[in-house]
Amino acid sequence: MSATSPQRVAIRDLLSQYRPGRALPRAFFHEPELYQAEMDAIWWRGWLFAGLACQIPNAGDYFVYEVDPDSIVVVRREDGTIGAMHNVCRHRGSLVATRPCGHNKAFVCPYHQWTYALDGRLLAARNMPAGLDTSRLGLRAVHTREMEGLIFICLAEVPPDFDAAADLMAPMARPQGFRSARVARVLDYDVHANWKLVWENNRECYHCDACHPQYARANFDRYESDDLDEHISRQIEAATARSQAKWAEHGLAITHPRGGLPVFPDAEGTIWYSANRTALVEGYITESLDGRRVAPLMGDYTDEDVGTLRLRTLPNFWCHASCDYAVTTRLTPVGPRLTRARATWLVHESAQEGRDYDLASLMPFWRLTSEQDWEICERQQRGVDSRAYEPGPLSKAKEYNLESFHRWYIRRMAEQTSVVHEV
Amino acid sequence: MSATSPQRVAIRDLLSQYRPGRALPRAFFHEPELYQAEMDAIWWRGWLFAGLACQIPNAGDYFVYEVDPDSIVVVRREDGTIGAMHNVCRHRGSLVATRPCGHNKAFVCPYHQWTYALDGRLLAARNMPAGLDTSRLGLRAVHTREMEGLIFICLAEVPPDFDAAADLMAPMARPQGFRSARVARVLDYDVHANWKLVWENNRECYHCDACHPQYARANFDRYESDDLDEHISRQIEAATARSQAKWAEHGLAITHPRGGLPVFPDAEGTIWYSANRTALVEGYITESLDGRRVAPLMGDYTDEDVGTLRLRTLPNFWCHASCDYAVTTRLTPVGPRLTRARATWLVHESAQEGRDYDLASLMPFWRLTSEQDWEICERQQRGVDSRAYEPGPLSKAKEYNLESFHRWYIRRMAEQTSVVHEV
Amino acid sequence: MSATSPQRVAIRDLLSQYRPGRALPRAFFHEPELYQAEMDAIWWRGWLFAGLACQIPNAGDYFVYEVDPDSIVVVRREDGTIGAMHNVCRHRGSLVATRPCGHNKAFVCPYHQWTYALDGRLLAARNMPAGLDTSRLGLRAVHTREMEGLIFICLAEVPPDFDAAADLMAPMARPQGFRSARVARVLDYDVHANWKLVWENNRECYHCDACHPQYARANFDRYESDDLDEHISRQIEAATARSQAKWAEHGLAITHPRGGLPVFPDAEGTIWYSANRTALVEGYITESLDGRRVAPLMGDYTDEDVGTLRLRTLPNFWCHASCDYAVTTRLTPVGPRLTRARATWLVHESAQEGRDYDLASLMPFWRLTSEQDWEICERQQRGVDSRAYEPGPLSKAKEYNLESFHRWYIRRMAEQTSVVHEV
Repeated sequence: MSATSPQRVAIRDLLSQYRPGRALPRAFFHEPELYQAEMDAIWWRGWLFAGLACQIPNAGDYFVYEVDPDSIVVVRREDGTIGAMHNVCRHRGSLVATRPCGHNKAFVCPYHQWTYALDGRLLAARNMPAGLDTSRLGLRAVHTREMEGLIFICLAEVPPDFDAAADLMAPMARPQGFRSARVARVLDYDVHANWKLVWENNRECYHCDACHPQYARANFDRYESDDLDEHISRQIEAATARSQAKWAEHGLAITHPRGGLPVFPDAEGTIWYSANRTALVEGYITESLDGRRVAPLMGDYTDEDVGTLRLRTLPNFWCHASCDYAVTTRLTPVGPRLTRARATWLVHESAQEGRDYDLASLMPFWRLTSEQDWEICERQQRGVDSRAYEPGPLSKAKEYNLESFHRWYIRRMAEQTSVVHEV
Repeated sequence: MSATSPQRVAIRDLLSQYRPGRALPRAFFHEPELYQAEMDAIWWRGWLFAGLACQIPNAGDYFVYEVDPDSIVVVRREDGTIGAMHNVCRHRGSLVATRPCGHNKAFVCPYHQWTYALDGRLLAARNMPAGLDTSRLGLRAVHTREMEGLIFICLAEVPPDFDAAADLMAPMARPQGFRSARVARVLDYDVHANWKLVWENNRECYHCDACHPQYARANFDRYESDDLDEHISRQIEAATARSQAKWAEHGLAITHPRGGLPVFPDAEGTIWYSANRTALVEGYITESLDGRRVAPLMGDYTDEDVGTLRLRTLPNFWCHASCDYAVTTRLTPVGPRLTRARATWLVHESAQEGRDYDLASLMPFWRLTSEQDWEICERQQRGVDSRAYEPGPLSKAKEYNLESFHRWYIRRMAEQTSVVHEV
Repeated sequence: MSATSPQRVAIRDLLSQYRPGRALPRAFFHEPELYQAEMDAIWWRGWLFAGLACQIPNAGDYFVYEVDPDSIVVVRREDGTIGAMHNVCRHRGSLVATRPCGHNKAFVCPYHQWTYALDGRLLAARNMPAGLDTSRLGLRAVHTREMEGLIFICLAEVPPDFDAAADLMAPMARPQGFRSARVARVLDYDVHANWKLVWENNRECYHCDACHPQYARANFDRYESDDLDEHISRQIEAATARSQAKWAEHGLAITHPRGGLPVFPDAEGTIWYSANRTALVEGYITESLDGRRVAPLMGDYTDEDVGTLRLRTLPNFWCHASCDYAVTTRLTPVGPRLTRARATWLVHESAQEGRDYDLASLMPFWRLTSEQDWEICERQQRGVDSRAYEPGPLSKAKEYNLESFHRWYIRRMAEQTSVVHEV
């Protein structure tokens, strides 16, 4: 696409419709060309959360992650590291791994049995000429980073820096013990809404009081600068003081000792990762319906009073973690009006269902919260499709993170469509 | 879209393929660009039948009508009048009314609880800056007219004249008592055919003999100039004479004392509304399978011999009404090859199911006739999609209303794509 | 479409991406514009297998074949010949035959009862002006050829030569007795893959060993030049010698006395038809799971040792036939990523289910083989949609027929998009 190609000009025209402080313009939520430009500028360039190392504990274990239109296989290699590669045979293009997850000693294409090592090297291609240069016919590699048991991939040839993200997030994530976790349950959702609506929904708690009664009882982040009364402020202070005293012993720290959501992305829209630890409301040891613990302690925790740990990376990941369980959420667009969301419940690897936890207690808090959000987003999609939709004003007190998301988004999109970057 | 934009030129090229006296050309039934141009020229500009006032008898009662891609909420206001507005929150665009119909004291957006009065005014937007000019953030208004209990809306900024339509139709509709009606049943259909095929099907009775055995027995309109023999003519005269003698007492009049369908639209293709009263075949008091009454008299009728009242407005409404019940049909395009049709059976508001009528007698006549027509249209859609389809000759005697529909259609489309209108 | 129209240029650009000796480029498997160009250059121009004469034994018997976007009715006429015509009424375009197959004395349009003779002539159009020239309003004819009970149609105005195909195939097909066959069972499949993937899959047996265990046991064509060891070669020689001795008596001949698939299309990519007879593996009298006969002998066969007869025509037909049964496979594209496949099992017309054969023995061999192939193709489609797909090298020994298919395909496509043909 040249700098002045009609598509690029059309995308720039669309981007120029954006007005800071307002919701995104209508076309942003359904134009197929813009969706393609987003895939190119954001989803095929940035780091994407793919899944968890504990899903593939042994060499040869794999799972498949589909990012429109690609299929990527994430695998534990012989040396114990995790790698990812395109799930496309170098012969005639068949998928090589055909199940969502499994275990293989090698990847054998089901069509003509071309055989690839766990690191993607082509080991055998029967009936091909002897001179075939198999060294150039391995499964195409995908950049991969494992960070404390969280797996990220990047589909770009040259990935953006990951180290700064790891520097910030890894120390926060480590005590949670994602590496020594096990998957208690996975739920996949088709959310009939543009991925940006799903993301925006996650970045404000303006809707929490009315839409998330269960969540709102356990968390302080529903209170922002404009409605933090003295009573609540004192509660937060008390919870923070109590927590900090205890947590310091365990090397933990409250990084967000306030109500409201942490600012993310940053004001300039350049930072795509975030982590914070926050106190929960008095009486809530974990994000469960009654606030009581629902599983054994995870990771390095020796005390249940560790508040709530939040991790998030743009464009597709957030995680809420308490002393006893964590839920990762992975977003993947499937078209302008469809986003696939996967929620994965994690507990300590030694916890046994029935003995140490049961799903009926473990799941409802986040299941309800997630499903309430999907419904919200689907209703919003139907509204923003209307010709009558006009971007309304955002609340400075409650929706500041939408503005920073928009800045991040516009910056990413502009970089890829701008003439400046062509020279 | 400028007068010489490529889309506009392409639409004009398509329109120029039309030949009077023939069916419409193939592209008219599936080209997405033409469909969009029709939405713009016809569906988003003209008056559309939306529903019935008796569906929303009390202040706060509402129903939602979706016209691709818009969602409109039609509501009874505090002052008893009926209004319509776009069902799109002025904040971030969520649908405000989320159910097909219901009752609200105010419309509270399910996302952030922005609250709108029944007339659309923004009453409350919590957590927004004090200086917010709420007077400019009401739900966007949609033009609405109630005519004798029939509700019409117009999505254009400046609607076409409605008064002439009301002047013609209201006196004809009044004695039927749509205002004092109640809904006995609603059926929604997805008809897999272009809306123009559905409309054309309704505007000729050339197909009635073979396709509508039930309908054909009760009605004279199957007989046109070319097959009205002396025997039938005498029947029509007798029925008309008998009716007129009785009806005059009650202020009713036969306006179409002939066989065949009334001419509609007019020869110039300018008039989009029509009403007529016609005699039924001897032995048919109403449009029921055996001709006998199936419900109490409606409206002002004091005698069951009132023939059949027909109302219709382009592009989306027709109604057949007898002494005891009425059925309104509302069409809505959902794409080039899909039309949603809603049929609503009405009886007197005091009639009680089980006591005064039962659906097993009330519904079959129009249900059969409607479903026979949908099947016809779906078969025709599959045929006109074929590359082999060529517009065939229309019967002058039987299909004159298709020609006038085509004139009306071409005129509407040309107006919106013509350079003349640009100056 | 002019020689320099943007679409044509875009198609030529796509075609130029093809590299001989490799799989087809990615865009070939999903671009809607290329799909349309293929329909135009190949599917609406070439001869298509439609079905079997034995499906419509009596005058007035018909079946419908849908080739995107057309609907064609294939019918046995009064004079016993088979004809085909577009299933589109010349009045307003309704389908005329509304069921997949049936029997009619005449075709009466279900809309307004325009009535067509079995040869398509318009017999009656009631209520039309007396002067209507009905001779120009017959159902539009489709070129038809019956060859030994196999029916081919061509949607082009001027069809390519069929005689050379008949000259080659008819003598080979005759003893199989397609004319005196009956349909034992029809299975329709929606294969979610581009039609070219389905075709390619049929043109190589590189995948047979691993994917078709049942097929591979019965056939020699899995062995190509690179893996035909002495042991197998001797088996083929023995089977061929034995067969030729017996078959000569019956006027049959082995035309492919080797392992591997016959070359088809030819090296120049010009010949679209093919037929051959080959020996089966010792112990296999027919293509059944255990090699034993599953139905009475078909056609002129007096001995069960007749090997396997293969017929194929580009772009949509193959047939495997043994002494006792035959299966025809008909492909029809429904979009870039969807191919409809119909498999039809044939036995001798006098064979009775339950007495002479049962479906549980007759069907599994080809049903398994077919369904294994559809699964392969669907996995491949998902892989070639990936951005990571690159056309890999083909095996010279095993995939030579893909190269010749590509040549045939590129030639057909280039002819229709080349400037040379414009002058």
